[in-house]
Amino acid sequence: MIDYEPFLSRAAQSWRGSAIRKMGALAARIPDVISFAAGYPDPDVFPWAALEEIARELLEGRDGAVLQYGPTRGLRSLLGALREILASRGIRAAEENLLVTTGSQQGLDLVSRVLLDPGDVVVVELPAYTGAIAAFRNAQATPVGVRQNDDGIDLDDLERVVAEQRAVGHRVRFIYVVPNFQNPTGRLMRLEGRRELLRWATERSVLIVEDDPYGELYFEGSAMAAETLPIKAHDEDGRVIYLSSFSKTLAPGLRVAWIAAPEPLVEKLEQAKQAADLMTGSLDQRIAFEALKRGVWAERLPALRAHYQHKRVVMEGALRAELGGVVSWPEPRGGFFLWVALPEKLSADRLLARALDQRVIYVVGSAFFVDESGSNMMRLSFSLPSVARIEAGVARLARVVREALAG
Amino acid sequence: MIDYEPFLSRAAQSWRGSAIRKMGALAARIPDVISFAAGYPDPDVFPWAALEEIARELLEGRDGAVLQYGPTRGLRSLLGALREILASRGIRAAEENLLVTTGSQQGLDLVSRVLLDPGDVVVVELPAYTGAIAAFRNAQATPVGVRQNDDGIDLDDLERVVAEQRAVGHRVRFIYVVPNFQNPTGRLMRLEGRRELLRWATERSVLIVEDDPYGELYFEGSAMAAETLPIKAHDEDGRVIYLSSFSKTLAPGLRVAWIAAPEPLVEKLEQAKQAADLMTGSLDQRIAFEALKRGVWAERLPALRAHYQHKRVVMEGALRAELGGVVSWPEPRGGFFLWVALPEKLSADRLLARALDQRVIYVVGSAFFVDESGSNMMRLSFSLPSVARIEAGVARLARVVREALAG
Repeated sequence: MIDYEPFLSRAAQSWRGSAIRKMGALAARIPDVISFAAGYPDPDVFPWAALEEIARELLEGRDGAVLQYGPTRGLRSLLGALREILASRGIRAAEENLLVTTGSQQGLDLVSRVLLDPGDVVVVELPAYTGAIAAFRNAQATPVGVRQNDDGIDLDDLERVVAEQRAVGHRVRFIYVVPNFQNPTGRLMRLEGRRELLRWATERSVLIVEDDPYGELYFEGSAMAAETLPIKAHDEDGRVIYLSSFSKTLAPGLRVAWIAAPEPLVEKLEQAKQAADLMTGSLDQRIAFEALKRGVWAERLPALRAHYQHKRVVMEGALRAELGGVVSWPEPRGGFFLWVALPEKLSADRLLARALDQRVIYVVGSAFFVDESGSNMMRLSFSLPSVARIEAGVARLARVVREALAG
Repeated sequence: MIDYEPFLSRAAQSWRGSAIRKMGALAARIPDVISFAAGYPDPDVFPWAALEEIARELLEGRDGAVLQYGPTRGLRSLLGALREILASRGIRAAEENLLVTTGSQQGLDLVSRVLLDPGDVVVVELPAYTGAIAAFRNAQATPVGVRQNDDGIDLDDLERVVAEQRAVGHRVRFIYVVPNFQNPTGRLMRLEGRRELLRWATERSVLIVEDDPYGELYFEGSAMAAETLPIKAHDEDGRVIYLSSFSKTLAPGLRVAWIAAPEPLVEKLEQAKQAADLMTGSLDQRIAFEALKRGVWAERLPALRAHYQHKRVVMEGALRAELGGVVSWPEPRGGFFLWVALPEKLSADRLLARALDQRVIYVVGSAFFVDESGSNMMRLSFSLPSVARIEAGVARLARVVREALAG
């Protein structure tokens, strides 16, 4: 057998298998494991009947374009519908500002390829979404962490980090943020914090990559739509690259997401996509467009908010009942995640093997920290499991934590 | 407005808008233009009724996995079905050797990211598929051309090119070939030429990237299935990375393709895909799998072969009638393309504006040559236009050529 090491690119040589994914594969083989790991939406609230009707009509219609190659930029009618969604979020975008992507993960990848050279620095939050970190690292850039506070980003820390990086000659091309119900913390960045970050980025000549998969999933009575207004809504000089997706609000299996950005960048992003996968699936784009046009998407949002809010309430109740006073978390006002702090002396990494024995899994907090901190943190997703399994899973988890505390 | 140039990666700075795509966009705005440019399959032969039934049943079934996130490697059942297709092509592959990709374009992109560093050399045929050239260039590698002959690759030229590149310190990591009905030439590489290329690659320690989108589309009476046997079928030491796709034989809008490669490389390709788009669309993969399982795919292949063969015959007949003795082409024994040589003194590039005036378009041959030769060549796709439009388009094209020859 050939030794492939000498054939690998420097980037590929540096990749190591993700511990999370290996664990996920292992867990998949254990019967009846309850997973709080995957941040998956709940298929129970997918609009099955509507999607079935849409797919049937599209394929009955025999319009060749439904299954044919299409423009790299995205289906024209879908771009129009995206403009309306963006307008409802306070963002004015022309078609020239839009690119449909094969999930937001591709958006992050394309942004990395257009903006990052090996050795460049990207500022990310401590903690930050692992998929974004992976995309930046695949471009051989270095994600550098900055602390969060209640408003959002700790601007003093940001100022210090960027000055340090620039002092040693590193280029800092953008900061990556998830202002709405961040993965993994669930935190909603305050509006004033958003405006301050935009002011800072303008002063320091840094672009902002704003990722917004969860913004529509605010919880009634807990957060208001106005509080989710994207940074991009205030972007007057084209400093913000905005990403959003239908994965959490329609269905992730369709792989339809989009980028809104200044036209010169969209042109480059389109060129990158042309060589990356030519185009996003035509049938998927048509289904998404029809779901928008027929109101299926917008009409379901209130039910989705209530559904996930209920699951959050159930998980919080179970955690309080089982581990009250032992673990803590900031109450998420939307999204899919509880960000749980164990007692300082416990390590979520070390607990994972025991959790697996008890047939419950989570994502270790350290996976989200580029500075390898956060060992006592864990991310629990309440979005996918049923209410009964949330309760059973928390009971299993509580057994693990109590046993570890007992020694 | 911000000047984005200083924010762009070196790769992005080097990208220039594709002349072909700009022309395509222009042509799309001209009413009644007949396009021989796009290498699109014909939607008239998509299995609409079967796909409609499959999609309806999948969405009626309410199996969450149909619309949910899934494994990066690909849907498990689809991987099993791909193994059977590969076996029918003489290729033994375990699941560990397979990765589903979002179209073969993504396969080319992932291969580039895993195997290429900036400055590396990739050997490509003169001419070669433009999408592959774009993927290699996006990785900042340099595609270097090698001549074709009737057997396939001119091995003397290959030996010379690789020795030259190595002499100046360039790494040559792989050669990219499309042995079956190549895009753009339609050429079927002879079996002996395939074996010789594999022997050469083994001796010279170069990998082979074998791209096979058209292999199933051989024309009865003109080529036999046995003549399309992939190089990969003879690959005993894991030297060949094999790509294939359902875009030409099922529907390109589904974006389902795959790579078969040695396990250590598939692991790296999977890591690249994880950061590139997480996964290929679930619904698309399920539809493709059901089309395989129900025999829809395999049963339609004879009709597809006959359909495209008939269009080739029509286009050849029209060319002979309109431009006999003026232009020439090697008769393609399968696939989608006629590779047409104009009289030496004519330039397909310069003719394009006149062709647009006559409302007919093609792809200029020079787009496929990394050494910028081939200016008197044009690629005509017969796959998409109807028989009537093929005849009308060739008549328009003949007017353009005759006028140019007249002065």
